[in-house]
Amino acid sequence: MSDEIRIGIVGYGNLGRGVEKAISQTSDMELVAIFTRRPPDQIQTTGNLVSAANIDHYQSDIDVMILCGGSSTDLPEQGPLYATQFNTVDSFDFHARIPAYFAKIDQAAKGGGNLSLISTGWDPGLFSLARLLFASVLPAGKTYTFWGKGVSQGHSVAIRRIPGVRHAVQYTVPVPDTIDKIRQGMTPALTPREEHLRICYVVAEPQADLAQIESTIKTMPGYFADFDTTVHFITEEEFANNHTGMPHGGFVIRTGTTGDGHQQQTEFRLTLESNPEFTGSVLTAYARAVYRMRQAGETGARTVFDIPLGYLSHEPPAELRKHLL
Amino acid sequence: MSDEIRIGIVGYGNLGRGVEKAISQTSDMELVAIFTRRPPDQIQTTGNLVSAANIDHYQSDIDVMILCGGSSTDLPEQGPLYATQFNTVDSFDFHARIPAYFAKIDQAAKGGGNLSLISTGWDPGLFSLARLLFASVLPAGKTYTFWGKGVSQGHSVAIRRIPGVRHAVQYTVPVPDTIDKIRQGMTPALTPREEHLRICYVVAEPQADLAQIESTIKTMPGYFADFDTTVHFITEEEFANNHTGMPHGGFVIRTGTTGDGHQQQTEFRLTLESNPEFTGSVLTAYARAVYRMRQAGETGARTVFDIPLGYLSHEPPAELRKHLL
Repeated sequence: MSDEIRIGIVGYGNLGRGVEKAISQTSDMELVAIFTRRPPDQIQTTGNLVSAANIDHYQSDIDVMILCGGSSTDLPEQGPLYATQFNTVDSFDFHARIPAYFAKIDQAAKGGGNLSLISTGWDPGLFSLARLLFASVLPAGKTYTFWGKGVSQGHSVAIRRIPGVRHAVQYTVPVPDTIDKIRQGMTPALTPREEHLRICYVVAEPQADLAQIESTIKTMPGYFADFDTTVHFITEEEFANNHTGMPHGGFVIRTGTTGDGHQQQTEFRLTLESNPEFTGSVLTAYARAVYRMRQAGETGARTVFDIPLGYLSHEPPAELRKHLL
Repeated sequence: MSDEIRIGIVGYGNLGRGVEKAISQTSDMELVAIFTRRPPDQIQTTGNLVSAANIDHYQSDIDVMILCGGSSTDLPEQGPLYATQFNTVDSFDFHARIPAYFAKIDQAAKGGGNLSLISTGWDPGLFSLARLLFASVLPAGKTYTFWGKGVSQGHSVAIRRIPGVRHAVQYTVPVPDTIDKIRQGMTPALTPREEHLRICYVVAEPQADLAQIESTIKTMPGYFADFDTTVHFITEEEFANNHTGMPHGGFVIRTGTTGDGHQQQTEFRLTLESNPEFTGSVLTAYARAVYRMRQAGETGARTVFDIPLGYLSHEPPAELRKHLL
């Protein structure tokens, strides 16, 4: 029997690969298998790829299953299913559907005698912790969340669907003037346009109508119409050289007052060269917490709000008190 | 019977007053009494001041006692004593003595059937959480903690003890060049001198030897000798106008790498106009957590590492999932 925490990964896209890399940086976790619905022999990896159809056979081999599918179609199906069989961690980020998803997972996990942490990563996840912490210690105040500079996959995909577009990437960028005001302690009400810029880099098909593409992007409701959007048409080569990374980040900031009006400001900031690798690292640390809390007898659904941060570390509590407190 | 969480404060200095103000900003807590060893009729307050000699009579009236004494002499005595009688929260910040203090409090609290949270505030406290979180999600990396710009009480007191000094305040300031390097992602090994500047404002007695005072400050071992220290002699009036506030703050920052060397940076920052009011607000939020965890049956000593952040909020878990996750 292994002393290490035995991890499985479901889904081998960018996030799954991020988790795989994160596990390799730990000293107390072992990656047992990566489950995929694609034919395993068509995927390049040194990992132990297993068809998702065989996942049932791994119940006694895996302590925590990290679900790396998407929130629109994968997790609503996989989350409740696998929570009956495994302790799970996922990054469900469809905000409006979190309460319903939580209820389903809670029922499934309790039924299976498992513990499932939903909606972790950095937002939801670490940013949620910052919002909660800041609001709790400074009840009189206002919190802002800004994202970027970073690639928004959803917005990039929306551009790629426009006829005549070959490649596209969209960067979300906090509006510099707004950030300045907020860091100075002002607490304005903001429209989406005042919060973020949307900057798009597009490789068009040779004969495409560029003006038409640009106008289609800028007027797209829900995605771009409410923002100041800039569209740059670039070459395939420039795209390949400069726009295939997945940087992201952002910050949660709260300005509050205490006593007779003393201003207090709290900020949590991330600057990430690889969004999926960082998200994968967060999921991996939380898998350790899930393992320990399950060992302590807990079952059902949890969010980051329910997890003592000490469980995230491989170090024992006495060491943490000595070195990090 | 009250629906509110009934709080007591022990010690009515700057921190005790900060806690008093923080409680007034909550909707679910009530300040029952402030216990002091000084003659209560000599202290100006609208609060319910009670002699510390009568604290025993309040065991059934107070849910959580917030201990606002200092770490050198007050808490080592009061912490273990009151933990036998009350659930407690304190800000014990004598780092090297935390393990021994934790053990004493744990024994006392368990003996009394109480729950005691030690060493909260912002450092130790929120900065400790940041250090732990960052190290857990980015195991390959380096964490730095910087304090300031802010008033260091210990250093200010050390200056005031020098003959010829009437008033003094010392500001700790992170070295700008160092911060720039670290924000750019460099991870240098730093000497104390490279981390912080010490800037002192001194009001001297009329006949004092200023050169002698300056030299005594700059060569003081443990406090100033290892730092670039600047001494400004100012008038009593300038001191009263510009240097009686208690601003502070600082940040915890970690740069780590994931995967094939992607750089990831995490930062937690505080900018505080009133250090004791912010610290008081943190202790107050954690008193709520202690109350709830005691209700759930827990006893013994805890640190911030053991507290799920959801317990800090007055909102129920389902609301937190809906609005803050």
